Amino acid sequence: MINAKAKGSNGERFLLRKFWDNGWACLRTAGSGSMSFPAPDLIAGNKIRRVAVECKVTKDESKYLSIADIDQLKTFSDYFGAEAWVAVKLADNPWYFLSLDDLKVTEKNFVATLEICKSKGFLVEEFFSF
Amino acid sequence: MINAKAKGSNGERFLLRKFWDNGWACLRTAGSGSMSFPAPDLIAGNKIRRVAVECKVTKDESKYLSIADIDQLKTFSDYFGAEAWVAVKLADNPWYFLSLDDLKVTEKNFVATLEICKSKGFLVEEFFSF
Repeated sequence: MINAKAKGSNGERFLLRKFWDNGWACLRTAGSGSMSFPAPDLIAGNKIRRVAVECKVTKDESKYLSIADIDQLKTFSDYFGAEAWVAVKLADNPWYFLSLDDLKVTEKNFVATLEICKSKGFLVEEFFSF
Repeated sequence: MINAKAKGSNGERFLLRKFWDNGWACLRTAGSGSMSFPAPDLIAGNKIRRVAVECKVTKDESKYLSIADIDQLKTFSDYFGAEAWVAVKLADNPWYFLSLDDLKVTEKNFVATLEICKSKGFLVEEFFSF
């Protein structure tokens, strides 16, 4: 039995390791949920690029992201000088990196669907190939 | 009564706020002490600069830093493409930012003394003025 929070942390650690394995430095944010300043789940950089990543794991086939989540990711990335990305792991699918522009916009949320992931997203190995 | 760990976290939060107040994005690292990958206490960036910061608070007039601490700060900074800094708050003195080159090297450690802080360090307001 593993709760949602632990599943999220394990997901972040998985991606953290992938960044290091591919020659990037990466770190996880302390208590990103409870801080008064915007903070992504992960930040990673190499000599050329910096990326701020919000990580989402779900057993469903789509994942809703709140407007507040996306806003704080944009704010942090703008100030820091980083690219903003969402990393999503849906149901039994692999991780996909999505650009914010590729999320579907609803009245109250942003949504990452499996269809979007497959058509617009980057698999981990693809993400590190450019 | 406040223990050393809480004092360290409070120090990190103080500097985190200073970065945001000065137009930088900044975040604290999750469990930097227990991770298997190098991680500074803070990372901050703006459109121009990125800095990785190891924070140390003590009631003494000097602070020893282990070779391992400095090595992991250098490693993270090299991979990430960030400047490496140590922020030190000694006894009743203000925070000083020190370049790694300014730390005194002993046989087994690095040391930040009050003399070094006062002669080579940057006060918070100075740090944000360049």
